[in-house]
Amino acid sequence: MRFVTAERNGTTFVGVVTSEERVIDLRLAEYARKKVITLPKTLVECIALGETFIEIVRELLIWVEGHPSSQYVYPLADVRLLAPIPRPTKNIFCVGKNYVDHALELGSAADIPKHIMLFSKTPTTVVGHEATVLRHREVTNELDYEGELAVVIGKKGKAIPEQEALEYVFGYTIINDITARDLQERHKQFLLGKSLDTSCPMGPWIVHQSLLPNPNRLHIETKVNGETRQKANTEQFIFPVETIIATISRGMTLEPGDIIATGTPAGVGKGMKPPRFLDTGDVIEITIEGIGTLRNRIGE
Amino acid sequence: MRFVTAERNGTTFVGVVTSEERVIDLRLAEYARKKVITLPKTLVECIALGETFIEIVRELLIWVEGHPSSQYVYPLADVRLLAPIPRPTKNIFCVGKNYVDHALELGSAADIPKHIMLFSKTPTTVVGHEATVLRHREVTNELDYEGELAVVIGKKGKAIPEQEALEYVFGYTIINDITARDLQERHKQFLLGKSLDTSCPMGPWIVHQSLLPNPNRLHIETKVNGETRQKANTEQFIFPVETIIATISRGMTLEPGDIIATGTPAGVGKGMKPPRFLDTGDVIEITIEGIGTLRNRIGE
Repeated sequence: MRFVTAERNGTTFVGVVTSEERVIDLRLAEYARKKVITLPKTLVECIALGETFIEIVRELLIWVEGHPSSQYVYPLADVRLLAPIPRPTKNIFCVGKNYVDHALELGSAADIPKHIMLFSKTPTTVVGHEATVLRHREVTNELDYEGELAVVIGKKGKAIPEQEALEYVFGYTIINDITARDLQERHKQFLLGKSLDTSCPMGPWIVHQSLLPNPNRLHIETKVNGETRQKANTEQFIFPVETIIATISRGMTLEPGDIIATGTPAGVGKGMKPPRFLDTGDVIEITIEGIGTLRNRIGE
Repeated sequence: MRFVTAERNGTTFVGVVTSEERVIDLRLAEYARKKVITLPKTLVECIALGETFIEIVRELLIWVEGHPSSQYVYPLADVRLLAPIPRPTKNIFCVGKNYVDHALELGSAADIPKHIMLFSKTPTTVVGHEATVLRHREVTNELDYEGELAVVIGKKGKAIPEQEALEYVFGYTIINDITARDLQERHKQFLLGKSLDTSCPMGPWIVHQSLLPNPNRLHIETKVNGETRQKANTEQFIFPVETIIATISRGMTLEPGDIIATGTPAGVGKGMKPPRFLDTGDVIEITIEGIGTLRNRIGE
């Protein structure tokens, strides 16, 4: 199941994308079936329902197959995808330098982390698939991309053991951890350089964990204007998803809808010789096996 | 005006503390006066109303003076203060090393920042005045305190000029930026060591900016078990409040209810020789001129 938040005729809704590239408006479909709406309005609130949400959606998808209607089933092309979670309820967690080659391209062997490096991006950074990413010319000369697998937490938990960590995952999506390298370096702690408005494209959807049993073995690729820049596999993670969840939750409660970007592989603009930063008109496409492609253009 | 979020008989409400140490439940007072409630339920939503909120409250306070009633005016001792903003809508912004003496006690002259160092604490860290701060014995051996002035943003803004920055402030409160020093050091980026559950005591209230025209000249003092550990004045800020707001908002939109902790002065436990960390039973009191005292005890 691929979950989206989308907009159609000015209305935002939570939907599921079918294998025929159609989008089902879940609340409208539920109403058509039962004349009552139990599903909440936002995907974060739906996720917080836990297994109940997935059971409702499974039944609904079967029912819709027998009762197709343009009232609640739309061609994917007729809706505008927002970020699947357009307004996270806290900053997005981000793991730094989680691939050896990326740590090396920005530094030396001393930069390969022995412990998870965790920073965050503010909720005001989030935009969806195909949204414009601002160039921020007045603030940075070194805008860069970072293709990343992102984990969406499905269940509240603290001190989660590694062996149980994947049970706390709702699903996976793609994040472009857009970074102002000059701000990142100048301000030492990463928050400012990672939190310019529109610097967190997310999407196009969240793939439910049942479809991706092993997040630590997914091909990931980033192209800029069609040219491949990053090409790796999440099996190269220094810290796999289970370790990330266990480490963050040791003394901090994780909540449904929390988002964790897992770090980027080698091939960012800053790592090239000479560095190649993003400029207006550039198109970045990040593709992750089993999820899809997140595409965004840089604009003024 | 001192704004609180408080609990009485199991109900949470937004209130104002009077000079006679009484709390007015704003929504109930509004209802008693007008038989209709226009004020929203949370303080963040109230703040987002802008000047309208302050005008409604001013009128209400005058009316209540002429119409006192135990239906909506309570002795301060009869309510439990929560954090004034119990659940921020994003991580709390924190400025690192904003006093020279504190930068020196944790390092050397090289650690005095030339540019603002910005990190964050997750919303799950927030607790109120008199709430227990968990010792987190299984996670850290180096729990430390940091008394700080916190700014609460009142108005949405981006690229805010320094000269206009204070117009974007709703008010001020106190934050204890509880820190696990071992985690802070081990994980390089500060987020993890700064985000243990209950590690952000906040309160006891937000003092409206009209009562504190100059946030850059306030006495600040922290005591542990009655012993003075930090004693400074915000005039020692390396970066005053105006510069902090201007710097953060250069490329990032600030929103009503955003909270910015402005950094801690010298005198933290880690800076002492030998270091003196917090343990169960310790009581931390932070007093800031014109605001009041935030008190919390460490517990299991």
